Amino acid sequence: MSAQVSTSLVALLHGPDKHGLVARVSGWIHDNGGNVLHADQHLDQEANVFFQRVEWDHPDDPTGASKAFVKMATSDLGMTVRVMPASARPGIVLMVSKADHCLHDLALRGKAGELRGEIRGIVSNHPDLAEVASSYDLPFRHFPVFDENRREVEREQVAFCRELDAGLIVLARYMQVLSADFLQEIACPVINIHHSFLPSFAGAKPYHQAYERGVKIIGATAHYVTPELDQGPIIAQDVSQVSHRNDVPDLVAKGRDLEKIVLATAVRWHLENRILVYENKTVVFD
Amino acid sequence: MSAQVSTSLVALLHGPDKHGLVARVSGWIHDNGGNVLHADQHLDQEANVFFQRVEWDHPDDPTGASKAFVKMATSDLGMTVRVMPASARPGIVLMVSKADHCLHDLALRGKAGELRGEIRGIVSNHPDLAEVASSYDLPFRHFPVFDENRREVEREQVAFCRELDAGLIVLARYMQVLSADFLQEIACPVINIHHSFLPSFAGAKPYHQAYERGVKIIGATAHYVTPELDQGPIIAQDVSQVSHRNDVPDLVAKGRDLEKIVLATAVRWHLENRILVYENKTVVFD
Amino acid sequence: MSAQVSTSLVALLHGPDKHGLVARVSGWIHDNGGNVLHADQHLDQEANVFFQRVEWDHPDDPTGASKAFVKMATSDLGMTVRVMPASARPGIVLMVSKADHCLHDLALRGKAGELRGEIRGIVSNHPDLAEVASSYDLPFRHFPVFDENRREVEREQVAFCRELDAGLIVLARYMQVLSADFLQEIACPVINIHHSFLPSFAGAKPYHQAYERGVKIIGATAHYVTPELDQGPIIAQDVSQVSHRNDVPDLVAKGRDLEKIVLATAVRWHLENRILVYENKTVVFD
Amino acid sequence: MSAQVSTSLVALLHGPDKHGLVARVSGWIHDNGGNVLHADQHLDQEANVFFQRVEWDHPDDPTGASKAFVKMATSDLGMTVRVMPASARPGIVLMVSKADHCLHDLALRGKAGELRGEIRGIVSNHPDLAEVASSYDLPFRHFPVFDENRREVEREQVAFCRELDAGLIVLARYMQVLSADFLQEIACPVINIHHSFLPSFAGAKPYHQAYERGVKIIGATAHYVTPELDQGPIIAQDVSQVSHRNDVPDLVAKGRDLEKIVLATAVRWHLENRILVYENKTVVFD
Repeated sequence: MSAQVSTSLVALLHGPDKHGLVARVSGWIHDNGGNVLHADQHLDQEANVFFQRVEWDHPDDPTGASKAFVKMATSDLGMTVRVMPASARPGIVLMVSKADHCLHDLALRGKAGELRGEIRGIVSNHPDLAEVASSYDLPFRHFPVFDENRREVEREQVAFCRELDAGLIVLARYMQVLSADFLQEIACPVINIHHSFLPSFAGAKPYHQAYERGVKIIGATAHYVTPELDQGPIIAQDVSQVSHRNDVPDLVAKGRDLEKIVLATAVRWHLENRILVYENKTVVFD
Repeated sequence: MSAQVSTSLVALLHGPDKHGLVARVSGWIHDNGGNVLHADQHLDQEANVFFQRVEWDHPDDPTGASKAFVKMATSDLGMTVRVMPASARPGIVLMVSKADHCLHDLALRGKAGELRGEIRGIVSNHPDLAEVASSYDLPFRHFPVFDENRREVEREQVAFCRELDAGLIVLARYMQVLSADFLQEIACPVINIHHSFLPSFAGAKPYHQAYERGVKIIGATAHYVTPELDQGPIIAQDVSQVSHRNDVPDLVAKGRDLEKIVLATAVRWHLENRILVYENKTVVFD
Repeated sequence: MSAQVSTSLVALLHGPDKHGLVARVSGWIHDNGGNVLHADQHLDQEANVFFQRVEWDHPDDPTGASKAFVKMATSDLGMTVRVMPASARPGIVLMVSKADHCLHDLALRGKAGELRGEIRGIVSNHPDLAEVASSYDLPFRHFPVFDENRREVEREQVAFCRELDAGLIVLARYMQVLSADFLQEIACPVINIHHSFLPSFAGAKPYHQAYERGVKIIGATAHYVTPELDQGPIIAQDVSQVSHRNDVPDLVAKGRDLEKIVLATAVRWHLENRILVYENKTVVFD
Repeated sequence: MSAQVSTSLVALLHGPDKHGLVARVSGWIHDNGGNVLHADQHLDQEANVFFQRVEWDHPDDPTGASKAFVKMATSDLGMTVRVMPASARPGIVLMVSKADHCLHDLALRGKAGELRGEIRGIVSNHPDLAEVASSYDLPFRHFPVFDENRREVEREQVAFCRELDAGLIVLARYMQVLSADFLQEIACPVINIHHSFLPSFAGAKPYHQAYERGVKIIGATAHYVTPELDQGPIIAQDVSQVSHRNDVPDLVAKGRDLEKIVLATAVRWHLENRILVYENKTVVFD
């Protein structure tokens, strides 16, 4: 995980596999004056789909190279492709409710320089965390949400995120369901932390469900948000052992540590352009 | 985990909590000539239920002490109680289908003296593992199962287990569902290994389900069998990380190692009288 | 882990095993008007030493009961014993250098009510974290340490900790070695987080050592501080997988998350009176 | 991890990094009629060394392609390179003493087709496991080892391994130290399982050492054997939690499960040509 020079590019490609793809991608980069820093590929042999993440240094004209690469990969190779400058630091908006642990964790990681992005603001359906946001000098916007005003509030939330030029929305324990319309209008990835080991215990109060079922391991799952609740592509998961000695508050407390780690991992991978989504699953180039 | 002397007893108790239970149990043992070796208790504060595992040495008359203890705990303390000689080694029947890894694992642990029980026979709905059984000098009985003969076959299976004086049935990747009648007739605990992290992916082909969902962690779950498929009390669970690079055969291979460890752990704990079942959950005194 | 009522007591005992200890302890509590809430014991069969943690409610006169219990356990049972009110919340002083992650983590857990103690001040050999301390409204004292003034500075540090009535010192990535004199004068437990899986990589720059050795797993270790550097009784350890792809900064970053979790766990257990130290090892009643 | 076609090749390369290496390797393969199936590379930025594992299908003339590739990589790219047919299944000799768990584990995995190699014989300094070897139809050779005959016995062991055309020696709990001469004469990789989390507890009786130190986690380490005892390049490590309740026999029992998994993982990776050794560390392409 090296420091990024300002002329590095990252491309994420996927499409039908064919002979010579690796050679053609690296050959193009070499012939056009670039130098491959990392390249990682994956072949889904069942679906015959080729996935690649390639990071290269392109000192002369990274912007031009980016455009040319997209054209080549699309027209010549028939791939779906996205190219980003490795040095890009997209804006992030965090959406929260009352729990503050993921907000603190991400804000502190942001300040420590662990994230290749910039947290620009906090959205909440409760006023409780205004002071926390302000302790990190982050703009805080309180949007009370009711069934009657949901659609209207979502439009205002989208507008607020646009003002801040957000390229990523992180639901850091935001306890409202976002509508399909919101997801379409926001037009950028939305990452959620679900406080269970999905697909176990989807929906509300997962720690209570876990306690009722008597599981011996609890988990947390970070995933991209799709219109189907808790059904989006899974990015990262982690687990922790529990026993009969742990009551629901214990599970909640243990879960907080899991949620922080798993959400931070997913956000970091996303910002490092390590994740390709394909058929509701993720390919994570680590 | 010390060696068991022949005059040790283990009691598992549970019932409504009341003042002084710990003192009364240990006081009774002391006053009756026993010496507590281990004692572990748990209080479910929500349900106000007290659970205890107590192991004590009773040199004079362990059989008499066992009966007297049950009487005291039941009449005086209002507890549900079971007392076993710590040196007991109940008979075990393994039920298998075609996969042999859990059979090998348990048979080798049995030979190595890791289990406080004796594997006495193998039941299968396929003939494939007859030779493996014979390599461990274990009687093997093949019962072909079809929808038409299921009930009749189950009766024969029960009879075979009784012949072997089985005190524990272990489904070591037995791919048939046992009926409620079987469970009632066998009248002893039945432990199953489910090849997923329950409650995720209950039912058939869990590794295919896990692959489809794109989870980043797979698991295995050992549980007592109840009439509701894959819904019985969970005894032990463990997990392993997977990635997009793992196809279904990879998940199956990784799963085999999980299944062996988790099933062996559950069987060992059961045989050491460490498990109390209460309201479809387990209290595991470790 | 239930909420503590104000009349609960916790006793930690250890001493030579003899018949009837469990019965005598719980009998005494019962006979003196107390009610055992939890009791956990351990027998080191090799050394024949008995360890017990017992928590009981003593509504009438907890202070008197505490004194009477110590007397009974010492004189009648020949045990070493310590009794604390379960509701006690000792003062904590954190000692730090430049790294801020453990400081943030403990301060936030303190604010969230996760710790049964009160962080009262920060000591540092560098001025860097003054602002962080102040953001949590914690007094910060900067003590520059050099070889020439070490002993004198330590005396001032001890005086500062006494002013704050500290019952626990936590070295939250404090990069100075404390002298045997300091440990004697402070006269309260000192917990350190070592950024490796001890006994591997004791001493300085453990992540560099781990990188050089090419290990596939890194760890962190929380231990009580003794005059022998990195040799004190281990309280908690955790690990994280690494690979050839991780350079030293990656190990450092992964290590930060381990250090936070492991140190917080050790501090929490200590404050819940769960730890007995015996012959440079810990018995952790969880 | 797909099935290997008979015309696939695997190359492991490393050497000084220079521009265009990825492009030149994949370009050469493409231009010479091959098709890259997997390619994974790693750049050690500190040492400026480039590492690559590339697997490709070469239907026409795999043997000729293999030679031509080595020539190109060596002469044109200045790399150290090794090319193997992906379908190769080298012979394996296991060396054991008295403990049988790793022997059973590897023999069963071999029979189950999990290893891309063929176990051909067992060497032991004790007669105890002759029967186990015979139950798997494996030739067993007993070589009693004493200080006086060590060198001579080692020569006979080497001769036996050569008869069996061994390409890999696995020390599956072989409790003798192999001399530098043996390692030189055997002229093939030797993998050992050390029953601790190296570098902790190198040398004899690691579980006793771990118990004495009071660690909360134990581990196992698979490594290539070099003349320096327990100092060779680490391939795989795993750990398991322990507590004060575990005595030495418990650690030994828990350790057996770790040792089996860790050794099997290392052997499998080695046989899949996933491991490059460089400066006493391994790059494991997983």
